[in-house]
Amino acid sequence: MSTTFHGIIGYTVTPFSTDGEQPNLAALGQSIDRLIDGGVQSIAPLGSTGEGAYLNDREWSQVAEFSLSHIARRVPTIVSVSDLTTTNAIRRARFAEEQGADAVMVLPAAYWKLSEAEILRHYQRIGDSIGIPIMLYNNPATSGTDMSVPLILRIVAAVENVTMVKESSGDIQRMHALHQLGEGQVPFYNGCNPLALEAFIAGASGWCTAAANLIPALNQQLYQAVKGNDLEQARALFYKQLPLLEFILKGGLPATIKAGLKLDGLDCGAPRAPVFPLDDAGIGRLGALLEQLR
Amino acid sequence: MSTTFHGIIGYTVTPFSTDGEQPNLAALGQSIDRLIDGGVQSIAPLGSTGEGAYLNDREWSQVAEFSLSHIARRVPTIVSVSDLTTTNAIRRARFAEEQGADAVMVLPAAYWKLSEAEILRHYQRIGDSIGIPIMLYNNPATSGTDMSVPLILRIVAAVENVTMVKESSGDIQRMHALHQLGEGQVPFYNGCNPLALEAFIAGASGWCTAAANLIPALNQQLYQAVKGNDLEQARALFYKQLPLLEFILKGGLPATIKAGLKLDGLDCGAPRAPVFPLDDAGIGRLGALLEQLR
Amino acid sequence: MSTTFHGIIGYTVTPFSTDGEQPNLAALGQSIDRLIDGGVQSIAPLGSTGEGAYLNDREWSQVAEFSLSHIARRVPTIVSVSDLTTTNAIRRARFAEEQGADAVMVLPAAYWKLSEAEILRHYQRIGDSIGIPIMLYNNPATSGTDMSVPLILRIVAAVENVTMVKESSGDIQRMHALHQLGEGQVPFYNGCNPLALEAFIAGASGWCTAAANLIPALNQQLYQAVKGNDLEQARALFYKQLPLLEFILKGGLPATIKAGLKLDGLDCGAPRAPVFPLDDAGIGRLGALLEQLR
Amino acid sequence: MSTTFHGIIGYTVTPFSTDGEQPNLAALGQSIDRLIDGGVQSIAPLGSTGEGAYLNDREWSQVAEFSLSHIARRVPTIVSVSDLTTTNAIRRARFAEEQGADAVMVLPAAYWKLSEAEILRHYQRIGDSIGIPIMLYNNPATSGTDMSVPLILRIVAAVENVTMVKESSGDIQRMHALHQLGEGQVPFYNGCNPLALEAFIAGASGWCTAAANLIPALNQQLYQAVKGNDLEQARALFYKQLPLLEFILKGGLPATIKAGLKLDGLDCGAPRAPVFPLDDAGIGRLGALLEQLR
Repeated sequence: MSTTFHGIIGYTVTPFSTDGEQPNLAALGQSIDRLIDGGVQSIAPLGSTGEGAYLNDREWSQVAEFSLSHIARRVPTIVSVSDLTTTNAIRRARFAEEQGADAVMVLPAAYWKLSEAEILRHYQRIGDSIGIPIMLYNNPATSGTDMSVPLILRIVAAVENVTMVKESSGDIQRMHALHQLGEGQVPFYNGCNPLALEAFIAGASGWCTAAANLIPALNQQLYQAVKGNDLEQARALFYKQLPLLEFILKGGLPATIKAGLKLDGLDCGAPRAPVFPLDDAGIGRLGALLEQLR
Repeated sequence: MSTTFHGIIGYTVTPFSTDGEQPNLAALGQSIDRLIDGGVQSIAPLGSTGEGAYLNDREWSQVAEFSLSHIARRVPTIVSVSDLTTTNAIRRARFAEEQGADAVMVLPAAYWKLSEAEILRHYQRIGDSIGIPIMLYNNPATSGTDMSVPLILRIVAAVENVTMVKESSGDIQRMHALHQLGEGQVPFYNGCNPLALEAFIAGASGWCTAAANLIPALNQQLYQAVKGNDLEQARALFYKQLPLLEFILKGGLPATIKAGLKLDGLDCGAPRAPVFPLDDAGIGRLGALLEQLR
Repeated sequence: MSTTFHGIIGYTVTPFSTDGEQPNLAALGQSIDRLIDGGVQSIAPLGSTGEGAYLNDREWSQVAEFSLSHIARRVPTIVSVSDLTTTNAIRRARFAEEQGADAVMVLPAAYWKLSEAEILRHYQRIGDSIGIPIMLYNNPATSGTDMSVPLILRIVAAVENVTMVKESSGDIQRMHALHQLGEGQVPFYNGCNPLALEAFIAGASGWCTAAANLIPALNQQLYQAVKGNDLEQARALFYKQLPLLEFILKGGLPATIKAGLKLDGLDCGAPRAPVFPLDDAGIGRLGALLEQLR
Repeated sequence: MSTTFHGIIGYTVTPFSTDGEQPNLAALGQSIDRLIDGGVQSIAPLGSTGEGAYLNDREWSQVAEFSLSHIARRVPTIVSVSDLTTTNAIRRARFAEEQGADAVMVLPAAYWKLSEAEILRHYQRIGDSIGIPIMLYNNPATSGTDMSVPLILRIVAAVENVTMVKESSGDIQRMHALHQLGEGQVPFYNGCNPLALEAFIAGASGWCTAAANLIPALNQQLYQAVKGNDLEQARALFYKQLPLLEFILKGGLPATIKAGLKLDGLDCGAPRAPVFPLDDAGIGRLGALLEQLR
């Protein structure tokens, strides 16, 4: 099952109405169509870029349902269902499965620091509640929890449907360890944009990226160059897109991707407060970066 | 207004039914009565100890309403209203004010890392929405955001009703800076239990603590010894209770305080998953620590 | 033996000739006399402030010999003998003992990160080579090695003449742990100037400080206020001198103390390159801070 | 000039007599011959692996002179001349130049934390004192000083003969920044063994490694595979040698490389105390790792 996901996994934004009160489903549909037209191998709704953490339960379900319905199995889907409580994460995972998701992604979101046993149980209970695969997601910067590679592999061994790992710590050596300790059997995915090249070099199956909203062709070409064993081409493609990758990471994905989509003619509104939209200087810089890549 | 709060500020737990599905308001009422009987100077519902982050909006309002109604102005109250979105934090702050809270506490909860300008705007908008004081709360371990003292003082200067600061970074030098840079005019409160003595020494107006659920007399005696300028007594009282303070911090406040209350005859249920209740070894250790203090 | 040391332990600078090539022993003698006139309970030559790490072996011995000879047992002495190799640290420790030092101080200086067993052996071999006490010194900022309290206490238990601990990590909770785990039997000393008050409150036997070169009376008064159980006085004295303590820590002790001594009429030359002397703006600020304290 | 250095830059150990008192020059000569026979593109004496920091000045000069004389320009040489004082680093740099070194390497060794201006001046003064190139070396783990890429490039711009950069922070993104901000004109070298593959992918000119004492053919093949644009081969070669690379990094280079050389029949003695030689379990593990690679 896990081999379903490879290559470029594009992340959706969650567009809002001008007053920020309502998800804008029409714009969401258009942004999804762009991702698919851009050639992504699969789509991940409601991730960090999708401001999943900033939606209330009703909104979250609405966006999940619409996204899956609009994608309509044109590409495989993986829905982020993370929540602070195990109960709500399970509820979301079941909902995603019912609506046709191919897999779910789970970050061990935490207010109180979780022990390894608590994290394992969290994944176990979600895994036991659904029949589709889980991509375990490690991102200490947003979750406050850094799962070591041995812990990750213990979870993979213990929970049957945790079959994929997304690593966003930014340390390429974690991927070496996943490759080595996982004996090449645990597919891992890169979630740190500025590591796009090295992660593929180290053996990552895919690249989870919001950049596919803006520069899908360059993302895809990098993936294909590595698959084609063309190192010089891969390096050139990587350094070409790196300034943009660094810009969107540093500026915050919801703010920068929404600004970039607007520059491309699709108004997705602002991120939800307290997150700011990109300011004018940032929009200018982003426009210049995109210009250079076209 | 800010001088309303001083001394021991006791934090409530949020008791749950056995299945964890519902807040147990009867037990909550009893735990509040214990805090007041124990002599706390004020009470803070729905903080970290109160698992405020693990409640849905309906539950949160229910617990806030009940807590304020049950306290019934026997002591001043300060309700934690933190939320990831500014909109929901405002909603909670207004609700708390309507229900009679004397003040609200705001942690800059974050999924996407916030800039200083975003944090300032967040406090500004909440402040503009209510007529009661705000205690700004810095706790990088749970919020993922560490506000520097200069930023804190900028917020205090800019937002009229941010009049108090709770510091939980664990670095006593932050309190020196609050005292110095705030020119002694910004009351600050300690939220790091193992710094209880030094924080009072450094000039903290109060000690925000869940320990008051278990050892209110010792907490109070420490405060009074410092107020009475009796350093030797303060030091002896501090080292006496320090092992318990360290135990509850290390074990997690919801788990350890609920276990301690149960040892004292008040069943408050377990923390919400994925957080574990205290295990048997921990309960044994906690019982022994409490025994030594009685 | 260990009770020899208490109160204010003053650190010497190592004055240099104008060209920086030679230690200036005449100035060193004057600076020592100032410390003693200022009332320090003991003196520590060749510590961090004394640029011990920047002297070659010949210079080091010269400065050690002169310092001990000039102090001439007017106060107890503790000589820092730290070196990267165990062999040279032993050589220095023996030399210090021969010249009449009452104790030596040892920081586990490291280029290659040391294991706990390597650190323990280092102290063991030095301890076995001399007949005077050792003050173990923990300062991760300068040594690159952070010794945990359990490791420190293992060394104290294993090496008979390691009888004192100097803690400069800046975390007051380390002192709590030394007090608790050491069962009040292991004298500890504070090496972090901005923690001067809290360290005494937590039970430190002494304060190791270069500030005694500039404001010995204020240092001494703080110590006496704590001993006299006068918390309000201690707090006032602490906040009075804190700006200076922070200034010398932030500006680097050799640079700021030498600049302060020159403002007081004693020219001790510059720190050795690559360390810069205090610049003109810094000298102006230091002068103003000292002015306020007189 | 800087293009002199590329590919595998092998680091020498400094063998000692059995009692640890004297450098063993005969063994040093043999270890140098092995490196050259193994095909390294150049040799770096007296680096971290060479325990340069643990030698006194006389020993340091003796080892430098012998190494350069024994290498006798068979390959280019780069001598590490780092020292805590600028004066002594200059003395060593001049000595190395006089003895025929092609370049020197400088780490900003520090006891007192250095400011950026102090670091820049240190490089400037060394650069002004010699006529050969300097490789600037960033290794926060051993030096305690982490130079940012902008600072590094400021030094490169300001000091004419700082023409190469060795990066050992372990963060591959530093190499991206060196490539981008240096506009491809500043040759950089990788000093973090487990990043060997990704560093070459990111554009590193060479790999500074002590592993060439043990597995020179595998090191060389990895370099050639990258040069030959054969990604699959490079990845396979990298993962093959990674366990050994991780082992020597974790175990400490002097201890593990000396143990490996002894397994190969060349007794280089132990590292200087307090550093331990590899223990029996480690020797067994190292032997097994080497066995698998032959």
